[in-house]
Amino acid sequence: MDDSSKLDSSDARLDALFLRHELEMFNAAYAASLDENRLSDWVEMFTDDARYVVISRENADRGMPVGLIYCENKGMIFDRAFALEKTAMFAPRYLRHIVGNLQILAGGRNGEVRARANYVVLQVLFDRPDAKLHQVGVYHDVFCRVGPSLKLAERRCVYDNLLVDNALCLPV
Amino acid sequence: MDDSSKLDSSDARLDALFLRHELEMFNAAYAASLDENRLSDWVEMFTDDARYVVISRENADRGMPVGLIYCENKGMIFDRAFALEKTAMFAPRYLRHIVGNLQILAGGRNGEVRARANYVVLQVLFDRPDAKLHQVGVYHDVFCRVGPSLKLAERRCVYDNLLVDNALCLPV
Amino acid sequence: MDDSSKLDSSDARLDALFLRHELEMFNAAYAASLDENRLSDWVEMFTDDARYVVISRENADRGMPVGLIYCENKGMIFDRAFALEKTAMFAPRYLRHIVGNLQILAGGRNGEVRARANYVVLQVLFDRPDAKLHQVGVYHDVFCRVGPSLKLAERRCVYDNLLVDNALCLPV
Repeated sequence: MDDSSKLDSSDARLDALFLRHELEMFNAAYAASLDENRLSDWVEMFTDDARYVVISRENADRGMPVGLIYCENKGMIFDRAFALEKTAMFAPRYLRHIVGNLQILAGGRNGEVRARANYVVLQVLFDRPDAKLHQVGVYHDVFCRVGPSLKLAERRCVYDNLLVDNALCLPV
Repeated sequence: MDDSSKLDSSDARLDALFLRHELEMFNAAYAASLDENRLSDWVEMFTDDARYVVISRENADRGMPVGLIYCENKGMIFDRAFALEKTAMFAPRYLRHIVGNLQILAGGRNGEVRARANYVVLQVLFDRPDAKLHQVGVYHDVFCRVGPSLKLAERRCVYDNLLVDNALCLPV
Repeated sequence: MDDSSKLDSSDARLDALFLRHELEMFNAAYAASLDENRLSDWVEMFTDDARYVVISRENADRGMPVGLIYCENKGMIFDRAFALEKTAMFAPRYLRHIVGNLQILAGGRNGEVRARANYVVLQVLFDRPDAKLHQVGVYHDVFCRVGPSLKLAERRCVYDNLLVDNALCLPV
């Protein structure tokens, strides 16, 4: 086997590494934008016709569509992010996301990538001293490439907890 | 330095990347099989003569062998997974694993790989609204290659908490 | 395009993978040294003139310098680690770190690398049965290369929780 064929044979494995690296960087940047309350940056991580859903595991397992948040395009995602800045009263808080256990499930049509990752959102309310487990669950994602960058065409956040501690004001 | 020698010198570093990638995918698949209660899939991640142990840090540190779960082969692991389906009464619950801080310690004899990773198991009981820290600890692992795939020849789950909240019904 | 130019074009991407791999191994080793109370190993992960700071998000966001811990060089870091062994009375405990969401922000002057990662420190006090969220936050890091190995020239641990449950006896 000469060098060029050796290269060829490792190309597929390398591509898998590059893709994983890219998705991990994406998820870390996604988490940081929410942790730092940079909601404009967060909105820009979705495609124009992206679906963003936050739904309980109970409903998701039974095929029930009703969730806490249901957005069918970027406009709705934008509104969801900024409505609360203007209209809602809610207690000030810090969020901290931990995203782990990334799995890349399959490349689909049109260069789409299906993936999942577990997440934990930790929350500190300003009138309580300690951090709490705010939400625990799994992201079911469809990524696609828009120009040079990766964007979310779909993120379904399926959370395990039966009640969400305090109201869900901010996206997960 | 020409291209071929450059390739050679980066081969070892590339192999380290590929191995890490493979172990991370394994741990994510392992966690998903438990999170989704696919216990048959979970059992298949072990070799025929695998050892699977869940033991407290207190006992592990003192060299005490007694643990919550002690399985010496795949048959015992299978029994442990499915006994509870038939015989035990236990409260329905959701589990969510976060596995992080993977360390690859050494390749050993016969292509074995020794590794460790920290884990957190979060649990939601169906009669309580919130997620709880169920178990926190470290996996001490020996992986080996069976055909094209990686399997666990040993996983020792050493947990920090002194009591395990609610009975330990499901594997970690 | 021939093989050599293909190689060249993927070199930068490969270097990014190697660097990420190296930082992840570093953070896992850092966490393990604290989890296993190997404080001498922990001290050795810093450069001689390293800065190590533990500060609340509240103070950090306002540019206030005062933190729980403030060390300006390795001698101070050493003292901080070992003072408590000799002088302080504190309840025995287990710690468990989960470090995730690594982001490599930029390479700077002199081969420095700026990075960040979210962390959760879980704690079990020996007189209480359950694990608690001890501290939740983000590492803001500057790494630099000393000989063949990577060291921390700066680690600022910015924690979200308003109070740190129990005294902060051990480094994060």
